[in-house]
Amino acid sequence: MNQDNQSKTKQTVNNLLQFIRDEHLQPGQRLPNEYELAEQLHVGRGTIREAIRELVSRNVLDVRQGAGTFISFKDGIPEDPLGLSFTDITDDMVFDMLEVRLLLEPEIAAIAAERATESQIEELYRQCGLIEDLIRDNQPYLREDARFHEIIGECSGNSIIRKLMPIVASSVQLNIGFTRDKFRLRTIEEHREIVHAIAHHDVRGAKYAMYAHLNTSRSSMLVAGQLHQPK
Amino acid sequence: MNQDNQSKTKQTVNNLLQFIRDEHLQPGQRLPNEYELAEQLHVGRGTIREAIRELVSRNVLDVRQGAGTFISFKDGIPEDPLGLSFTDITDDMVFDMLEVRLLLEPEIAAIAAERATESQIEELYRQCGLIEDLIRDNQPYLREDARFHEIIGECSGNSIIRKLMPIVASSVQLNIGFTRDKFRLRTIEEHREIVHAIAHHDVRGAKYAMYAHLNTSRSSMLVAGQLHQPK
Repeated sequence: MNQDNQSKTKQTVNNLLQFIRDEHLQPGQRLPNEYELAEQLHVGRGTIREAIRELVSRNVLDVRQGAGTFISFKDGIPEDPLGLSFTDITDDMVFDMLEVRLLLEPEIAAIAAERATESQIEELYRQCGLIEDLIRDNQPYLREDARFHEIIGECSGNSIIRKLMPIVASSVQLNIGFTRDKFRLRTIEEHREIVHAIAHHDVRGAKYAMYAHLNTSRSSMLVAGQLHQPK
Repeated sequence: MNQDNQSKTKQTVNNLLQFIRDEHLQPGQRLPNEYELAEQLHVGRGTIREAIRELVSRNVLDVRQGAGTFISFKDGIPEDPLGLSFTDITDDMVFDMLEVRLLLEPEIAAIAAERATESQIEELYRQCGLIEDLIRDNQPYLREDARFHEIIGECSGNSIIRKLMPIVASSVQLNIGFTRDKFRLRTIEEHREIVHAIAHHDVRGAKYAMYAHLNTSRSSMLVAGQLHQPK
């Protein structure tokens, strides 16, 4: 692809995004077909196809074979928003991520306690139970644990926090690698404490419970000796 | 592209990322050419081209015409990590972003005050001066203001914060739209106060100065009447 085509594609990507905004298209809704889009945006079908491909890789669009092109439910949040997939994940980076979680999540839990709706609280309890079952059955629970933290983000009612949480929650995986068996049982208690505080709209309680929970990860990393008291 | 090709491309993308990690390729370094990659990863050149295209759109790779394919200096951080480009930016969303900045940036300023190196402090002072000149000359200073906040993130020495800050700083633009003239002059003072605290490793001072600075944005949004005291 030469320079000209590249900038033409870029322009078309932007026009397509504008089109989606103008039409207020929502996740799951279908885009007009290539012919119509080409006509509407005054470019060739090849350029439209390039632009669609780009937006698929950005999780804005989904192509379903034979059915058409749809607004993605992934909300345009890219696969790897922090670009971690091509860096070696060092111990330092794991610790740095935990530092970020300690900055963010206690405050998010506090906001969640302020604003959580009844149905969100129910969802939190359900998710909590799901994780407990997995831990007791000695099953992997990484994904469900990340989802637990995402739901707390949703409870905040803040649209940006909701978009940030999956980025942060994806690192739960990094931390659990360090977590020893005795901490798995502690996880059950700590999650319950967080949910309990949010359910009772206990703003400070939720914050402190989240600090305690994240500090367990931190301690376990120090205990595992794979990390030293940092910096 | 059919389902089979899609999953083959995805696999090749992952193999290519693995290759970059294994070879410890750094930003600016060149990737082997398509022929070599196709041979090494046991796929056709078409698939390699698809995978490269995908990684270009994820800002992991850069293609320079006639020169080859290089590891991008953009560090794999996507254009729009929060997927904001296809949502309408509502006033609520601007307020939500400010809430996130109020969660994150005062704490980041505190960490920066703890860990900033002499050369980082010099860079902060330079950036501060640059913005002051622009404000005094009545020039746009959005980009330099965002960069100011990014440098504070770099001062934290935390690799994840460094990757998060551009995401957050990109919203400076949203807020400044609300900021009236009288606040432009306040920006100069407030930036100076932040830099001064960081330069003197005044951990709490840096945090409080950042709170004050962000609160000015918040107040100006409320004063502008475009937002009501939220939720």
